[in-house]
Amino acid sequence: MYFDTNLDNGRAVPYNDDNLLKWGNRNMEQGNKRPETMERITTEALANAFIEEQIKALREQIGDKKVLLALSGGVDSSVVAALLIKAIGKQLTCVHVNHGLLRKGEPEQVVEVFRNQLGANLVYVDAVDRFLDKLAGVEEPERKRKIIGAEFIRVFEEEARKLDGIEFLAQGTIYPDILESADGIKAHHNVGGLPEDLKFALVEPVKLLFKDEVRVVGKALGLPDSMVFRQPFPGPGLGVRCLGAITRDRLEAVRESDAILREEFAEAGLSGKVWQFFTIVPDFKSTGIRDGRRSFDWPVILRAVNTVDAMTATVPEIPFATLQKITDRILKEVKGVNRVAYDLSPKPVATIEWE
Amino acid sequence: MYFDTNLDNGRAVPYNDDNLLKWGNRNMEQGNKRPETMERITTEALANAFIEEQIKALREQIGDKKVLLALSGGVDSSVVAALLIKAIGKQLTCVHVNHGLLRKGEPEQVVEVFRNQLGANLVYVDAVDRFLDKLAGVEEPERKRKIIGAEFIRVFEEEARKLDGIEFLAQGTIYPDILESADGIKAHHNVGGLPEDLKFALVEPVKLLFKDEVRVVGKALGLPDSMVFRQPFPGPGLGVRCLGAITRDRLEAVRESDAILREEFAEAGLSGKVWQFFTIVPDFKSTGIRDGRRSFDWPVILRAVNTVDAMTATVPEIPFATLQKITDRILKEVKGVNRVAYDLSPKPVATIEWE
Repeated sequence: MYFDTNLDNGRAVPYNDDNLLKWGNRNMEQGNKRPETMERITTEALANAFIEEQIKALREQIGDKKVLLALSGGVDSSVVAALLIKAIGKQLTCVHVNHGLLRKGEPEQVVEVFRNQLGANLVYVDAVDRFLDKLAGVEEPERKRKIIGAEFIRVFEEEARKLDGIEFLAQGTIYPDILESADGIKAHHNVGGLPEDLKFALVEPVKLLFKDEVRVVGKALGLPDSMVFRQPFPGPGLGVRCLGAITRDRLEAVRESDAILREEFAEAGLSGKVWQFFTIVPDFKSTGIRDGRRSFDWPVILRAVNTVDAMTATVPEIPFATLQKITDRILKEVKGVNRVAYDLSPKPVATIEWE
Repeated sequence: MYFDTNLDNGRAVPYNDDNLLKWGNRNMEQGNKRPETMERITTEALANAFIEEQIKALREQIGDKKVLLALSGGVDSSVVAALLIKAIGKQLTCVHVNHGLLRKGEPEQVVEVFRNQLGANLVYVDAVDRFLDKLAGVEEPERKRKIIGAEFIRVFEEEARKLDGIEFLAQGTIYPDILESADGIKAHHNVGGLPEDLKFALVEPVKLLFKDEVRVVGKALGLPDSMVFRQPFPGPGLGVRCLGAITRDRLEAVRESDAILREEFAEAGLSGKVWQFFTIVPDFKSTGIRDGRRSFDWPVILRAVNTVDAMTATVPEIPFATLQKITDRILKEVKGVNRVAYDLSPKPVATIEWE
């Protein structure tokens, strides 16, 4: 099991070559090829038709058995969770692992939406210390990704073993994952690497949908916009934006600056116009001056990109007043930061993420 | 002898507490206080009157003796050199120390203007290897500055000892230097720290002028605009912009990216509108992709600021097309670089320089 280090499309999740195209076939209800006649889901009506069809199919597939789902809070797993809650209710157990690398407010939102609003069986695992302790002092990006991926599997496995009689594992596989795997380019697997004795049949209700269709379905299911239109977010989370060896204080600077950036982009009406935006805090300090005294603090890098396929990306022009406001807020509100810079680099020759 | 580490006004030169306000009195021709009746030099006619008066005063002060000047290529020392060449010709010896930390084309320009065009006695010292060898592996900004300052004095001292019968040392002291010294805020001394046995009388013909007056005088003396309107440049040169331990390859990335920035700012008509602009290359790498393969290279930080007194500074809005062109050129032309970012940080809480 390993991680793609340069995936840059928000789905840098662990995968396993052995799983390549095998898992898709276990879902008996449908094949792995989208029929050419299948209509693109672009309206609420089409989404509702899809939802009805899937609910029927899921009930047939699952019967009175139990289903387990790793719920990250991303669009795909959230839509699968909402679909399954509609279809089989408490037969579904969602496990949300908070590895400490999520964005500000995300774990809270998962609990609020799925446990409080949708009444799901939700196991919330606070694994923050566990992950950060494992990551302490690890500088190498590849090793960081491996540790995060492996630890995620371990935590999920532990939770799975606590539950009795689970027969199905639900996953937020979407059609581009299958296409890319079939092309031999990349394999995506949300919970790859589980041990042999933990064998589940797979439930993948959105595996023939494109991302935009998943969003339409999510909206029809009543999920909040902040979840449905969430930007792509890498599997290792903020861990790859807290460059080099992750420390709690610098990770906090990434999380707080990222929250400010998102607030101000929303305020400026940019959230829907820019494909992805986030902040990065390198493990590097420079001189500044605060309250008349010399300071030595981190810079925050603002990153915003537009892309169609994540293979190439351009940097959008952001109104200068917005950049200034974000800068002022970060310098005022985020501890340990004395500079803000806007990354102007297209992909190639840069990548979207910094590590 | 030490350097001000956070001076940030382009005159971060070595100084010596013992020299505080002593040197100014040695020039018998004028005191250290600008008379209230002294007219501000704003026109070519006024500049010419000043030049005539100074030529007379300098000839009286110096007679047939010899004068030594450390010629950095900055505005102040260049104007003093041009004045002295007019007043005493070959009695002046200019020493230009190339410490390897100058901007692209600067040492060549000093030779071209002063030796070839003005026919000065110019000693050009190629001390590049000497400085870079001494700086190898030195990460601490304070220590870097001390090494550059001390080594500069040593090189200059060696050259001074080679010359016979020098009685005067000319310096580009200007009035703000005196004001700041008198205030007890800062002492500026262009060639502080020479040993006791090398005692010269001082010649400081522009010590009662403000910077803008020095420029008007420089223009009247026929110096090229690129010299007269040169932005402030720190004493330790590009050494404080090649952050941390200076290496030749990264220093080259600073110099080349700085040259591109200056070309494109000139092209966009920004050179006269922005007070100071330069590039920084931190000792830090991030992931990129070049020719389909993973790269691991430095970012270049673009820095541009406007200020009145260098105590506070704002970041100007640069047209996005200009930022994009600079980015494209740097990513294409500068070796070892895969990112470009624009520093958005005002002073405070940042400083103009990064170290």
